[in-house]
Amino acid sequence: MHGTPYEPDNIFAKILRGEIPCHAVYEDDHTLAFMDVMPQSNGHTLVIPKTPSRNLLDADPTTFMWLLPAVQKIARAAKRAFHAHGIQVVQFNEAPAGQTVFHLHFHVIPVYEGVALKHHARTHEDAGQLAHNAELIREAMKFNS
Amino acid sequence: MHGTPYEPDNIFAKILRGEIPCHAVYEDDHTLAFMDVMPQSNGHTLVIPKTPSRNLLDADPTTFMWLLPAVQKIARAAKRAFHAHGIQVVQFNEAPAGQTVFHLHFHVIPVYEGVALKHHARTHEDAGQLAHNAELIREAMKFNS
Repeated sequence: MHGTPYEPDNIFAKILRGEIPCHAVYEDDHTLAFMDVMPQSNGHTLVIPKTPSRNLLDADPTTFMWLLPAVQKIARAAKRAFHAHGIQVVQFNEAPAGQTVFHLHFHVIPVYEGVALKHHARTHEDAGQLAHNAELIREAMKFNS
Repeated sequence: MHGTPYEPDNIFAKILRGEIPCHAVYEDDHTLAFMDVMPQSNGHTLVIPKTPSRNLLDADPTTFMWLLPAVQKIARAAKRAFHAHGIQVVQFNEAPAGQTVFHLHFHVIPVYEGVALKHHARTHEDAGQLAHNAELIREAMKFNS
């Protein structure tokens, strides 16, 4: 069923290998979180496992043990850092569902009352803004319960 | 930070207590999955932990251990059952982000090429169709790897 192989040259694999930079906000032995460069809202962050999986459909369930706790950490920190009114957690499987990078990732998207989300993967954010936002999340994580 | 208490009379708590019915597709000691009665697409299913949590922000991380594996089971089965082209996994935190029931839940939404998703929590599906879809997912789960 899950016949499509993992493609090791996808952009998140390159980020994990340090071949291209990212605005990292959190890293542990199993997980990396960094700013989405085409955010749907201010503070949009991605959480990925270090284990290669195309998406949720083909992932080894052991991958999940550290993933949702990391998503929670980022969601809490992003809500605090940006004074967001809510958080959407979104995960796309296969291109027709909106997946554009084929390494499993969760979107953590701060939502602000009265502000519509931008389209997915459409407009590049200024690098200085991304660096600033990453710093705000890292700072907010110090207060995570 | 996570000061809003869990409200034990929310609709998913009532479903868990058996006080109101649902079209169940999967249950284990920690998790229940059932058809969304106002689906955004054909086959839209909800996965919830039995442990009470308002959402991802206040949940005890031990709750997550069984949750994402169950979401994966349902995502795989729904993709197979409905011959979907992709799956969106969505989880809302707080009303401004779209949360309408305050018991932690993941939406597993089959996506079909050329078919737009319907609005969230808008139109009630026919009960016969929901019962049929639940049966299709339960059948497809027998083939889960």
